[in-house]
Amino acid sequence: MSSVEVHSQQPESASSLIPTLPGSHYTDTAVFEIEQSRIFQRNWFAAARSNDMATLGSFRSVDVGGESVLIVRARDGALRAFLNVCRHRGARLCLEESGSVRRSLQCPYHAWTYGLDGSLIAAPNLNSMNDVNRDEYGLIGVALQEWLGTVWVCLADEPPSFADTVQAAVAARLGDPDVIDGWRIEDLVVGRRITYDVKANWKLIVENFMECYHCATIHPELTEVLPEFADGYAAQYFVGHGAEFGEEITGFTVDGQSGFETLSGVDEDHDRRYYAITINPQAFINLVPDHVIFHRMYPVAVDRTIVECDWLYTQEVIDTGADLSRSVELFHRVNQQDFDACERCQPAMSSRAYASGGVLVPSEHHIGEFRDWVAAAISG
Amino acid sequence: MSSVEVHSQQPESASSLIPTLPGSHYTDTAVFEIEQSRIFQRNWFAAARSNDMATLGSFRSVDVGGESVLIVRARDGALRAFLNVCRHRGARLCLEESGSVRRSLQCPYHAWTYGLDGSLIAAPNLNSMNDVNRDEYGLIGVALQEWLGTVWVCLADEPPSFADTVQAAVAARLGDPDVIDGWRIEDLVVGRRITYDVKANWKLIVENFMECYHCATIHPELTEVLPEFADGYAAQYFVGHGAEFGEEITGFTVDGQSGFETLSGVDEDHDRRYYAITINPQAFINLVPDHVIFHRMYPVAVDRTIVECDWLYTQEVIDTGADLSRSVELFHRVNQQDFDACERCQPAMSSRAYASGGVLVPSEHHIGEFRDWVAAAISG
Amino acid sequence: MSSVEVHSQQPESASSLIPTLPGSHYTDTAVFEIEQSRIFQRNWFAAARSNDMATLGSFRSVDVGGESVLIVRARDGALRAFLNVCRHRGARLCLEESGSVRRSLQCPYHAWTYGLDGSLIAAPNLNSMNDVNRDEYGLIGVALQEWLGTVWVCLADEPPSFADTVQAAVAARLGDPDVIDGWRIEDLVVGRRITYDVKANWKLIVENFMECYHCATIHPELTEVLPEFADGYAAQYFVGHGAEFGEEITGFTVDGQSGFETLSGVDEDHDRRYYAITINPQAFINLVPDHVIFHRMYPVAVDRTIVECDWLYTQEVIDTGADLSRSVELFHRVNQQDFDACERCQPAMSSRAYASGGVLVPSEHHIGEFRDWVAAAISG
Repeated sequence: MSSVEVHSQQPESASSLIPTLPGSHYTDTAVFEIEQSRIFQRNWFAAARSNDMATLGSFRSVDVGGESVLIVRARDGALRAFLNVCRHRGARLCLEESGSVRRSLQCPYHAWTYGLDGSLIAAPNLNSMNDVNRDEYGLIGVALQEWLGTVWVCLADEPPSFADTVQAAVAARLGDPDVIDGWRIEDLVVGRRITYDVKANWKLIVENFMECYHCATIHPELTEVLPEFADGYAAQYFVGHGAEFGEEITGFTVDGQSGFETLSGVDEDHDRRYYAITINPQAFINLVPDHVIFHRMYPVAVDRTIVECDWLYTQEVIDTGADLSRSVELFHRVNQQDFDACERCQPAMSSRAYASGGVLVPSEHHIGEFRDWVAAAISG
Repeated sequence: MSSVEVHSQQPESASSLIPTLPGSHYTDTAVFEIEQSRIFQRNWFAAARSNDMATLGSFRSVDVGGESVLIVRARDGALRAFLNVCRHRGARLCLEESGSVRRSLQCPYHAWTYGLDGSLIAAPNLNSMNDVNRDEYGLIGVALQEWLGTVWVCLADEPPSFADTVQAAVAARLGDPDVIDGWRIEDLVVGRRITYDVKANWKLIVENFMECYHCATIHPELTEVLPEFADGYAAQYFVGHGAEFGEEITGFTVDGQSGFETLSGVDEDHDRRYYAITINPQAFINLVPDHVIFHRMYPVAVDRTIVECDWLYTQEVIDTGADLSRSVELFHRVNQQDFDACERCQPAMSSRAYASGGVLVPSEHHIGEFRDWVAAAISG
Repeated sequence: MSSVEVHSQQPESASSLIPTLPGSHYTDTAVFEIEQSRIFQRNWFAAARSNDMATLGSFRSVDVGGESVLIVRARDGALRAFLNVCRHRGARLCLEESGSVRRSLQCPYHAWTYGLDGSLIAAPNLNSMNDVNRDEYGLIGVALQEWLGTVWVCLADEPPSFADTVQAAVAARLGDPDVIDGWRIEDLVVGRRITYDVKANWKLIVENFMECYHCATIHPELTEVLPEFADGYAAQYFVGHGAEFGEEITGFTVDGQSGFETLSGVDEDHDRRYYAITINPQAFINLVPDHVIFHRMYPVAVDRTIVECDWLYTQEVIDTGADLSRSVELFHRVNQQDFDACERCQPAMSSRAYASGGVLVPSEHHIGEFRDWVAAAISG
């Protein structure tokens, strides 16, 4: 390194490598707050698995864009979502992450009682408060959609089109809006759920998921199963392309041995292949012939993200008590390897060496699109 | 809930329910800093029990509005209060919360030595520093009053009238400035002290103490002893009113069985009754026939408050070695139930559902007065 | 204390005692950030012992002004310093505080590989990226100097003169630029290293080191060895002066018994004496006849500083397996006593009693010079 270059931090010469977001976007709490309001509160957010709330009165509370959102199975069998806050004095209705109530949601502070549809149905002395219009004090509702067996919520007053955002992202990746139907994800059930507490900004996790330039370095098991990943080109690089299993590989498992029967709706073109889909801002779907791996991210701080990962199988596989361990182990290792890498980047985001960001090689071009999507979202 | 209402956060229609403070007042550290300077440093603050510093040289250090205040029993038998900071290089004089010194307060860093009246009496090499006017370097004093066996301090340059604030609050509640004298609180002694570390803003604790609309829901033991509390109207609702013991109740104890002899100065009108008094900003007094429960709050962060609660009995009760456990247990449970409720509200204060606050039912009207008191105090 | 004085915080009358920095300089995170950029990134910073990186490929990573700096022994035998950040996507190259690599520094995320001189020598697919000028993507270098067996680094684009700052500070203290050569510090080796985690602002530690007014109060062992310290005048008070050992003292040890042979280059004038040198902003050197004690401070937060202290002896002393414990114990106790004092000051820095700072007695005059140095450094 010549002495002239020693302190040059922003090369002035042109370069073929395009920049990432600047480092401050990964460390500045003010940026994170803007993302909470302009990204996570405005977009459809994969909040939970529908079947997590299988029975009448069962609920989950999840953090969405800084809000605690309560999702509950109502009396009509549909799911409803509300802000998890009593309208009276602001107590949390449900402190637990999941559980169930019988017929209503009762605040444990002053016993204001709401129907499972969110309406205020009772409160002590309410009858003697003649002027109170109880319709004003129902729980504050949150928009909700179900697709792929997943509950998507949106805190926006006017949610964007679900078809144009969530469903369009899947179609753009697979090259056809109907292909994903083959996996019948809504009929699959959770065989294993692992929750990761990652000490990294959520965007590092997205960016990591979007490229496979790192696969040869950190994912030995995955590149054994999917040899083309060793070349550094991600499955997402080409529209509709799925990475093909190696010749000796008989299943998407940690040792490449057979997994389970190919799902009945997955045709020959999609068998023996792996597809990865990113749905902005916080859902990843991995499709393999015999199961689906579904990630939901819950950003909790500028440098911390909870990731909930479900391994989904047919009810039949679960009912037979099959051993899922080799099937789960492959992507569990991938997750650990990826999240370790993200945690290794987080502390350097505040360095002057990253003040104007890093660089992207050509095979990382999806990250450039994500960068532009984030920049547009937080500026508006 | 109609679809129109789903995202309405501020009902536009008129309502009989009046609002609380907005949620940001319970979560914004900038608001907390303003409260420290304009509320806790400007008002009389119940800092300690006088008898905590019973003997010459005994001291307590307490946090008042962000300052460590040292209260010490001086040679003339009176209590003095000082900022707990050496005038030389800023070392804490006393790190312990309580203790005793012999004749002086000596800084352990450079041995500057102060009399118990705060004057600088010695420092190494001081005699050779001819120009030093040692009167300039005495400890910085803090205004102090004693009443009800309690030390009240005020960090203001010009403290407000003690009579017009602290004593007036008690008189306004009881309807007569002399009634409280019957309990001779200054002669009572601490039978039990419990310190609670509450993860909630101090105002949630005040507001909780000011209403009994929650009593039926969370205080089964208390409503057993004071049946009228089950109706949701607080003892503080009517001036001079004390909640009456239930017919079968013979004492203010966890099981309603007899406690101790009625205090000799408590007359028939006040026997078999419970009185609760709030003294802004951080003291609560509970009067029952045979003892007094005195709460002092020490706000330490926007979302954390230390509460020190004393159960006070006559010296005779203590000297006989009487079992205080059933007597203490009643309000200890009430405290735990209340503080749990406050901690359940704290995380929801940042929700958009609470951005413009919650609502108060008519029986919570004292909270409206407190809201106005706080708003006026922090704006001036 | 007269009643008039009770609340006076800034005496208006003239005083012979000069002020310290105001309290906010020790508590305000914004001030700390300015110090990081204007003091610790602009000045030469004692980062490590050269011999910590004795062999080819051995490295240390140290925090300098908020940056992780990687110091590595290159193939030419010289030391090089770099920002510890991969130029590609910002991963930390070395997470460990110390260790060694073979021939290159390889990023564990995407395998970008740098020579020990910082040049980018390989990256997957790099050959197929025709436009990439690999000279642009070498590690970002940091200026480095070696002196007294110590690695000094500077993050400034144009580092100040090493001779005019670091070396001049030593000469100014000892009265002669050549005196320090007698200790041949570059030939000494680390006999013992102790790392202290001090919950105090770095300036409190510097100020503590600059005066001996506290010695009589907190350093009984040290004043036993150096009786003149009991008078409160620091060794640094007079240019070229070293505090003399007491008559009965035969070595700089915890019990005053003999230590090791006087270093061969230390002449009679400097034998049986102790010299303390402060090099702004974060190095202290203590010279005694038979060893050297070298402190390096690493400020990590406005209220927290890591101090690494080396006890340096001749290779001969180490090779004989001599018992260092009494030799090390003396200054280890001094360190503990000093850091306890600093931690006692830190919480009071935010008091209104210290808003305009404390005062300095005449024997603390060096602190006044340090105050002016800091004020000038952060204002420019």
